[in-house]
Amino acid sequence: MKPESIGIVANLQRADAESVLGRLETRAAERGLALLADPDTAACMAAAESVPAGDLARRADVLFAMGGDGTVLYAARLLCGSDTPILGLNLGSLGFLTTVGEEAVEQAVDALCEGACTIEERAALACELEVPGDDEPARARALNDVVVGWGASSSIVSLDLSVDGEHIATFMCDGLIVSTPTGSTGHSLSAGGPILYPGSPVFAINVICPHTLSSRPLVIPDRSTISIRVGESAKPLVLSIDGRDHPGDITPGCTLHVRRAKCGVRFVHLEEYSYFKLLSQKLHWRGSSI
Amino acid sequence: MKPESIGIVANLQRADAESVLGRLETRAAERGLALLADPDTAACMAAAESVPAGDLARRADVLFAMGGDGTVLYAARLLCGSDTPILGLNLGSLGFLTTVGEEAVEQAVDALCEGACTIEERAALACELEVPGDDEPARARALNDVVVGWGASSSIVSLDLSVDGEHIATFMCDGLIVSTPTGSTGHSLSAGGPILYPGSPVFAINVICPHTLSSRPLVIPDRSTISIRVGESAKPLVLSIDGRDHPGDITPGCTLHVRRAKCGVRFVHLEEYSYFKLLSQKLHWRGSSI
Amino acid sequence: MKPESIGIVANLQRADAESVLGRLETRAAERGLALLADPDTAACMAAAESVPAGDLARRADVLFAMGGDGTVLYAARLLCGSDTPILGLNLGSLGFLTTVGEEAVEQAVDALCEGACTIEERAALACELEVPGDDEPARARALNDVVVGWGASSSIVSLDLSVDGEHIATFMCDGLIVSTPTGSTGHSLSAGGPILYPGSPVFAINVICPHTLSSRPLVIPDRSTISIRVGESAKPLVLSIDGRDHPGDITPGCTLHVRRAKCGVRFVHLEEYSYFKLLSQKLHWRGSSI
Amino acid sequence: MKPESIGIVANLQRADAESVLGRLETRAAERGLALLADPDTAACMAAAESVPAGDLARRADVLFAMGGDGTVLYAARLLCGSDTPILGLNLGSLGFLTTVGEEAVEQAVDALCEGACTIEERAALACELEVPGDDEPARARALNDVVVGWGASSSIVSLDLSVDGEHIATFMCDGLIVSTPTGSTGHSLSAGGPILYPGSPVFAINVICPHTLSSRPLVIPDRSTISIRVGESAKPLVLSIDGRDHPGDITPGCTLHVRRAKCGVRFVHLEEYSYFKLLSQKLHWRGSSI
Repeated sequence: MKPESIGIVANLQRADAESVLGRLETRAAERGLALLADPDTAACMAAAESVPAGDLARRADVLFAMGGDGTVLYAARLLCGSDTPILGLNLGSLGFLTTVGEEAVEQAVDALCEGACTIEERAALACELEVPGDDEPARARALNDVVVGWGASSSIVSLDLSVDGEHIATFMCDGLIVSTPTGSTGHSLSAGGPILYPGSPVFAINVICPHTLSSRPLVIPDRSTISIRVGESAKPLVLSIDGRDHPGDITPGCTLHVRRAKCGVRFVHLEEYSYFKLLSQKLHWRGSSI
Repeated sequence: MKPESIGIVANLQRADAESVLGRLETRAAERGLALLADPDTAACMAAAESVPAGDLARRADVLFAMGGDGTVLYAARLLCGSDTPILGLNLGSLGFLTTVGEEAVEQAVDALCEGACTIEERAALACELEVPGDDEPARARALNDVVVGWGASSSIVSLDLSVDGEHIATFMCDGLIVSTPTGSTGHSLSAGGPILYPGSPVFAINVICPHTLSSRPLVIPDRSTISIRVGESAKPLVLSIDGRDHPGDITPGCTLHVRRAKCGVRFVHLEEYSYFKLLSQKLHWRGSSI
Repeated sequence: MKPESIGIVANLQRADAESVLGRLETRAAERGLALLADPDTAACMAAAESVPAGDLARRADVLFAMGGDGTVLYAARLLCGSDTPILGLNLGSLGFLTTVGEEAVEQAVDALCEGACTIEERAALACELEVPGDDEPARARALNDVVVGWGASSSIVSLDLSVDGEHIATFMCDGLIVSTPTGSTGHSLSAGGPILYPGSPVFAINVICPHTLSSRPLVIPDRSTISIRVGESAKPLVLSIDGRDHPGDITPGCTLHVRRAKCGVRFVHLEEYSYFKLLSQKLHWRGSSI
Repeated sequence: MKPESIGIVANLQRADAESVLGRLETRAAERGLALLADPDTAACMAAAESVPAGDLARRADVLFAMGGDGTVLYAARLLCGSDTPILGLNLGSLGFLTTVGEEAVEQAVDALCEGACTIEERAALACELEVPGDDEPARARALNDVVVGWGASSSIVSLDLSVDGEHIATFMCDGLIVSTPTGSTGHSLSAGGPILYPGSPVFAINVICPHTLSSRPLVIPDRSTISIRVGESAKPLVLSIDGRDHPGDITPGCTLHVRRAKCGVRFVHLEEYSYFKLLSQKLHWRGSSI
């Protein structure tokens, strides 16, 4: 279905942001598409309607996230359950989520108008933090990952890991990451985790700096509920969701439950998109480096 | 459904093999179950019918594999497409596939008769080796894994990896492992691979000693076809299927295709079986080791 | 040389602390050795002289650290340049530094009196933290390791690593560990670092969760000066020295210099002590676990 | 000391080999240096004296190894105890040992004549293979590494590791690598080993695909003797020395002893040489790859 409007969020600190926005305006005008942008972005554009960020996904037919992968994660937070698809356009260097280059902004508009693109749905995580004494758990959604760990002290952390109510192990460690396939090329990868092909119906659980040397990344079906209970460490930990620190404290006795969110995040891909090509390009998989 | 007969394969070199077989005979007689065993095993038993190993799966209602995980892999090879379930009984130490202890042999027979057990189906791999100049590819099935590598020389190997016909990368390495969830705790784990929870509809691809230092284990949906083409190394490689060397040569120009086999392997579990308990016990996940 | 006095620090929260202290008193009396203890420990003993913790190393001929490895690290901090040797006695489970079991407390006293023991010197780290605008760098010593990282936020850290003034790389990561051979079996090991045999004249540098996937642990001669400059991350980091958080802030622009300390830490070993035996026992290096 | 002659070994299959040899001849003539080359190389040159490869090191003042790292390893084997320094000149892409680019061949000759270069000695390994029933052990030298493992079958290998006569552990594995600092960026690195700065007086021991999941690379002083005894696996293994398969069989019961060789290998470096620059260039340590 041909879109009638494009919502825009952009990282305006990137060097080429304004010129690419200008090119987007020109081509959208030629194609008769309405442009909506959050107020900061709209201020850099000639004719885009300024719309509160939180309303963009509801009002636009497709959401352009222009910048880096962080901009796409921000766009995904704006969805709030809407199924508006996101098109990630990188300003600068190729990202796992910003797969369209800035040189292709016109091509992206054309492809949308001509239906020459595909939609892929990525799984998201629904997190609930049970805090002793609180009636209502805090809730959040993640497209990439949930990380519990360290905090303002380096002292060791004790985390109880359970899956579907069954206790697996208590890990003495620096932290623990639960990631979706989308997030598997992020923080989890730096911690030794595997790469999960998008669409694999699984999540990865990865202990950061485990004192149990035989600990290994664990891949489980995405129908599972993962629970992480913070043991008796004498410090508040950091809870990071898609790379953003969660405002509430996570203290000894808290339990974090992670499961697959009801709604995922939909992405627009141009026809030449290939996950494996992207992967080998990003990770420099070209022959021997030693 | 209550079984009427038990087929038996046993590793007779294990210390307790004969006494456990004796106890099995006693309890089977009490329960009115017929026993069938391969000729070597039958020779150690009083009243079991001697049956060619290749006929056991077809004729028995359940197959007892007594020994270590290697014995279960052997039993799985005997299935030849039959859906007869396997019960793995360890003689010695707990295995990932021999999950019933020898002390529980009577309990296992009782549980079968009373239906106090569950059946779990594990995915298997179907492999085809395309050799240039050969009309028909060689075929084999694996429950655990397929390994290509090293061979009689230590010189470096060049392997082209493709998934569903799309080329991913050419790895300079010692070898490459494709493993099922069942095999993920075997050779793949020793090579840095993740643990795949049984039933996860994915396979793991793992490069052994990659010269590309950014290479990481890859987890892909089990509906994919994985192809490994042997590049211009000047030596024949080893092809190992479930830990057994494959008779045919695998030489430069050969391509190995791996996909999910149509039939999996069914296992009988007693009610107290828990994969996670087994895992944390086998890997000594008990607190800090450092 | 036969010692005339033993200084004692003990972790009094360990179950057997008091009974082992009692046994130590009995045997020391039989051997004519004076006992000095820090005030808390002295309060649990019948006849030990209470001495401020900071004076123990200067006044005693040998220092007994009774508890876990943390107790030994505490004892090492009390040395303040003194070359009094430490004997680590574990209360509970074997440690890398508390190598004498509590059952052997009498044997340890006897061995000291009879000279049936060896002294081993372990290298320590001297750290200097240069804070922009401060005249004088903060200084600290470490027996195990120095860790820079995370802090109260999970956002990524940028660290510039130089050795002997030569810039090596800027790592985007969660943190970085510099460890001595003694510390190589601690935090560094959990982060994928190698085990450095004690006495190897080298240090290990290890990036925690590096975003550069080709990053690997680096082993350099202990005559080198390692400098870590904190890049433009928008947050204060944690500086941890031998597992204790450093009071001062480490903020963007700070540089941490690490080199070998002039004085090391001397340890008393009983004759049956073997590093490799300890290592394989602690890490469960007994055959296959998979 | 200004050299009077240059010995040459070259990988003539590299595209630019002949033209670079020609430029070397021109500049050597201008500088009044004699050129000696092995017969194959001499055949491609106008005026170089043809000398048996085994005599080059003894007769020339410096040895140019032109090609890749393999060419340098070959040159090192030609030394046979001579202390003639090697200059590694890459034809194609930068190597860890071929650190001078082909564009700098004239600069290299000039630097030698003007003394504008440094000599670095790298440690080598002396290996002895004790075969039961043989009187005399087989001997070999390695600049990079010694690898024992796999062989023509993939079945698991059992290796007993001892250091200075003390048994450390029996590893069930695919193989084991002992590497010098020079070799630490080779096969050992691909197997998860650390990078040892050249000149660090240590060796690394690294188990390939250990079934003991808590196994980690071990770094030991280079004054140690490492012994690897092949356990009861039912197959001959491969013994690889600097990447070359050793002719003799290594079978169950054999023991390989590895220690530091009396003579190392000396390398010529131009003044701009920097190990760390080379390392970060070869391993692409430039910011985040994910």
